[in-house]
Amino acid sequence: MMPSPNDSASTSLRPFWAVIPAGGAGTRLWPLSRKARPKFLLPLLDQRSLLQVTADRLQELAAPERTLVVCGGAHAAAVARQLPALPDENILVEPCPLGSGPAIGLAAAIIARHDPEAVMGSFAADHDVRDPAAFLAAVRVAIAAAEQGWLVTIGLTPSRPETGYGYIERTDEEVVLSAEGTAFRAAGFVEKPDRERAEAYLASGRFLWNASMFVWRTASFLAELARLQPELHVGVTRIAAAWGTPEQETVLAEVWPTLPPSTVDVGVMERAERIAVVPAEMGWSDVGDWHGLGALLESDQHGNAAHGPIIQVDTTDSVVWSDAGRLVALLGMNNAVVVDTPDALLVADRSRAQEVRALVDLLAGAGRGDLT
Amino acid sequence: MMPSPNDSASTSLRPFWAVIPAGGAGTRLWPLSRKARPKFLLPLLDQRSLLQVTADRLQELAAPERTLVVCGGAHAAAVARQLPALPDENILVEPCPLGSGPAIGLAAAIIARHDPEAVMGSFAADHDVRDPAAFLAAVRVAIAAAEQGWLVTIGLTPSRPETGYGYIERTDEEVVLSAEGTAFRAAGFVEKPDRERAEAYLASGRFLWNASMFVWRTASFLAELARLQPELHVGVTRIAAAWGTPEQETVLAEVWPTLPPSTVDVGVMERAERIAVVPAEMGWSDVGDWHGLGALLESDQHGNAAHGPIIQVDTTDSVVWSDAGRLVALLGMNNAVVVDTPDALLVADRSRAQEVRALVDLLAGAGRGDLT
Repeated sequence: MMPSPNDSASTSLRPFWAVIPAGGAGTRLWPLSRKARPKFLLPLLDQRSLLQVTADRLQELAAPERTLVVCGGAHAAAVARQLPALPDENILVEPCPLGSGPAIGLAAAIIARHDPEAVMGSFAADHDVRDPAAFLAAVRVAIAAAEQGWLVTIGLTPSRPETGYGYIERTDEEVVLSAEGTAFRAAGFVEKPDRERAEAYLASGRFLWNASMFVWRTASFLAELARLQPELHVGVTRIAAAWGTPEQETVLAEVWPTLPPSTVDVGVMERAERIAVVPAEMGWSDVGDWHGLGALLESDQHGNAAHGPIIQVDTTDSVVWSDAGRLVALLGMNNAVVVDTPDALLVADRSRAQEVRALVDLLAGAGRGDLT
Repeated sequence: MMPSPNDSASTSLRPFWAVIPAGGAGTRLWPLSRKARPKFLLPLLDQRSLLQVTADRLQELAAPERTLVVCGGAHAAAVARQLPALPDENILVEPCPLGSGPAIGLAAAIIARHDPEAVMGSFAADHDVRDPAAFLAAVRVAIAAAEQGWLVTIGLTPSRPETGYGYIERTDEEVVLSAEGTAFRAAGFVEKPDRERAEAYLASGRFLWNASMFVWRTASFLAELARLQPELHVGVTRIAAAWGTPEQETVLAEVWPTLPPSTVDVGVMERAERIAVVPAEMGWSDVGDWHGLGALLESDQHGNAAHGPIIQVDTTDSVVWSDAGRLVALLGMNNAVVVDTPDALLVADRSRAQEVRALVDLLAGAGRGDLT
C-alpha cells in the first residue's frame, strides 16, 4: 500500500544511509583552503571541520556504519583521522575526480549490495547549517517521500535573488504533508538565473535553491541511472560487485577512469521522472567565499568580522582571517578581506570575493602551484 | 681676512666633523619600524640601513674618527655593529631622549674640546638622498659659509606645497656664491604652514624645506647656545669636560636628566643672529610614512610598488612590503598599503598613511606594547 500524503514522515522502517561527497577545493577561500587541505577539512565556523560537523549532523539519522564519505586519495588520511568512528571501508577513495555523478553512483551501488531496500541521502561535506533540527526535520520528510519512490531534493527557501545557484521549481502537488514539513512534486530544475529572473523566482515563492541535498531509495535512483546514464550505471555496478573482494582495487582502477564525468544534478535529477522537493529553512550556507564566510562570523558594531586578533581605526564591513593568530591592524579600510596564512597573504575588495579563483589560476600559471 | 662671497667653497682648511643624531622611532613606518628597531636601522631603499647610507654619504667629508652618532642605549649595539669603522667613543649614548638640542649640543661641546676650530654638520640618520653628489656640493657651500661664522641650514627646494614640514625663508643676500651653489642669508624659520600658505611658499621660490641639516663652526654654535639656552650650554659643557675621563658616566648620568628638552631648530636656529641657507635639490625624502616610502620604491605599470613577491588582479597604486618574502596576493585593491611582518600585519588606505601612529598608540593602550 502506498502511504497517502497525510501520513507521518517519522515512521520509516527502511535503514537510512548517509553519503557525504567530499570533493571540491573551495578555491574561493584561498589562501586558507588549498588543494591539499580543501574547505571541507577546515574548521571555519566551529572547532570542528565542515566535514566533521556534517557527519555530526547526520549521526541522528545514520550510524557511522551506514555513513559513507567519497573523497580523493590526497584527502583519505585526513578524512579517516577527522572521522575516527567511520569504518575504514566506508571511506570510498576515487582514483580521480569525475564529479558527483560517479561518486554518488558508486556509493548508491555499494549501498544497494549491502541493502537493496535502503534509503540514502547525499549531503555535501562543505556546507554550513545553523539550524540542524530544521535540517533533520526536512530530511525526515524527504525520507517519507523517498519511500514512495520519489527522488527528493531538499530545496532551500531563498533569502535573496541569488544568481550563483541553480533552482528547483515546485508544483502545488503535495507528496508528503507532515508536522515537520511538506514534500511537493517538483516541476523541474533550472540553471543559474540572471538577476531579473532571480528576483522573479524570489517573489514567486515557488523556487528553491538547489544545494544538491538528495534523498532517495537506492533502487529508485539506480533504476533512473540505468535509464539515463546506462554507461555509468554499468560501470558503478561492476565496481560495486567487486567491492570488498580481492579484485576491488583492480576493478576500480580499470573501470573508474572510463566512467563519463557528470553531476547527479545534470545527469539524473534534471531528467528523472518522479522528482520531489522539500522546501526548508535551516540557516544554510555553502560558505562559498570570503564575503559569505564573513557574513557567518560574528561581527563588531562596525561590521568587521574577524577570526584572530585585530585592531582597527576607521575600518568597516571588513573580513579578517588570521590563521596563525598574528595581529592584523587596519586603518581606513572599508569592505576589505584580509586572509593571513603562513605562506600567503590575501588582501581583496570584499565585493570581488568571487574572483579569488583568478588569483589562484595566476599562481598556478606563474609556477607557484605550491601555494594553491 | 673674511672671504668674499665670490670665493670658492672648496678651500676649507678646518677639519670637518659629521654628527648623526639617530633618534626617532619612525612610528609611521610601523609595523616594520619598532621601538627596538627604529627606521634608521632598517634597510629600506638599499641593501644597507638608512644610518649606514647616511654615514657612507658623509664619508667623503669626514673620516670615521670625525663622525659621531648620538643614539639611545637601546640602539647603541646595533649602531656599533652597523658602523664597524666608527670608533667606540664616537657613539654617544643618551641616558634618555631629550630632543636634538641636547644631543647636538653635547656633540658640539665634545668636538670643541677635540678641536676648537672645527666645522661640524648635523644630518638625520633616517633620511634618504637619491643624489649624494648634490648633497655633498651643498654641504661644501655650507661649510664655506660656516667658516665665515654663519649658522647654516641646507634647505630643500620644495617640489610640492607640503604642510608637514617647517620652512626657511631666504633673502637675496648672497653669503657664498660658488660653482657648487649659493648660501643666502636666511630671513627666518617658519613653522608648518597651512595649505594656502604652503602654496604661496612654493610659488615664491624663496622658501625651502627645513630638514634639520645644519652646518656651523662649533664655536659659533656654542656661542649662540650660551646666549639662547645658557642652562643647556652649561650642562653640555660640563659633560664634555668629563668626557673620556673616569668621571664620564657619573657626570653624564647626573647632568643629562637635568637638561631642558628642546630641538636645535626651536632652541637655537629660530632665534640665532647670523643664519644662512643653502638651497639644494638632492632627491631628498624623510621616508616618513608608507605613502612616501612607496613613492621611492620602483613601481610597475599599474603604480604598485612592492618589496617582496606579489600577484595582483585589478590592483593599482598600492604599496606592499613583505619583509619575510611571503607572497602577497591582491584583488581589486586601489591605493592600499600592506605591510607584512612576522608578528603584525598592516592593511591601510594609502591616503591615511600618516595616521599609522594612531594604531601604534591603540596597541600600546591595549597592552600590546610588545608589538610597538
